Amino acid sequence: MDTPVDPRTARSRDAILAAAHTLLVREGPASVTHQRVAHEAGVGRATVYRHWQRADHLLLAAMSGSDLPFFRSPTSPVRPWLHQELRKLADELTLPAVAAVTLTLMQTALWDPDAATRRNHSSAAVTTRITTALDLAQETGELTTVLPSEDAAALLIGPMLYRTAMEAGTVSDMLISHLLDSVGTWRD
Amino acid sequence: MDTPVDPRTARSRDAILAAAHTLLVREGPASVTHQRVAHEAGVGRATVYRHWQRADHLLLAAMSGSDLPFFRSPTSPVRPWLHQELRKLADELTLPAVAAVTLTLMQTALWDPDAATRRNHSSAAVTTRITTALDLAQETGELTTVLPSEDAAALLIGPMLYRTAMEAGTVSDMLISHLLDSVGTWRD
Repeated sequence: MDTPVDPRTARSRDAILAAAHTLLVREGPASVTHQRVAHEAGVGRATVYRHWQRADHLLLAAMSGSDLPFFRSPTSPVRPWLHQELRKLADELTLPAVAAVTLTLMQTALWDPDAATRRNHSSAAVTTRITTALDLAQETGELTTVLPSEDAAALLIGPMLYRTAMEAGTVSDMLISHLLDSVGTWRD
Repeated sequence: MDTPVDPRTARSRDAILAAAHTLLVREGPASVTHQRVAHEAGVGRATVYRHWQRADHLLLAAMSGSDLPFFRSPTSPVRPWLHQELRKLADELTLPAVAAVTLTLMQTALWDPDAATRRNHSSAAVTTRITTALDLAQETGELTTVLPSEDAAALLIGPMLYRTAMEAGTVSDMLISHLLDSVGTWRD
């Protein structure tokens, strides 16, 4: 990837990324080829090659969401805040665009070290944020738990991922309440 | 897909499927092209086209595991049996081949109706089997729960999927115990 200086170069780069993202969401990762992206972005194929020599690197760049807008800045009491954050995440996961990016990242990470690094960065950030929130709840006596903090993200998010991506279903507020109960005992 | 009558046709079909599966596991779904599969299987490209005109249909056929060997025939007491089944599944999910097939199926299902049908069939089978096991545990008084039975698979398997596919980690027996506790109260 280059560091654009010419504004036209920056514009074509943005147009290519937007086109790649559109194709990913609309038709899946196999559609993110140099030819299709060039056509969708309205630029020449050579321009796409100049920015990204490999289609899989372009696909990776087109997966947005490098900083996830979830689980930031917890407030006390933690349970209603965490319920709300999980609700937001569950609703996002049912959007085709978010499901596409998430599953493509997880799948690409099996073979591509760059994708694996992004996946690891993403999951580590989520774990840190959830741990911070549960620590706050424990400090204020709102939550009692013996759960290792590194397991909380899997317990809270895993079932939502399975429900949306494997069962093609939606996450009820009752299920979210149940997930919260699964990480410990909350004081009313 | 054709119905093979000639044994040579059946042999080339099997060789193509095996080659496609090998490529999927070793290099990812993007490697399952007519050309690569023909080379790997030691057959001509025209032979691959004769069996599968579309590479994505071949990929789908190459994803094995149409009948998952998990959660069948529960025994009482259910908890140790279920723990053992979850252990087996967790160990399978850490294998690159199984992770590749699972994530490719979930991802392909976002765009491909055939893949969506297979994914739905797979998750419905798992839900039915887990429900059968938990019903048995409730009938014998081993388990008390108010959980809707359709949520059990997400609660039991979702965290294992997240741990292996998103966190690239392994599932401890302690986490499995915690998952079992999350579906209800078990009698000792």
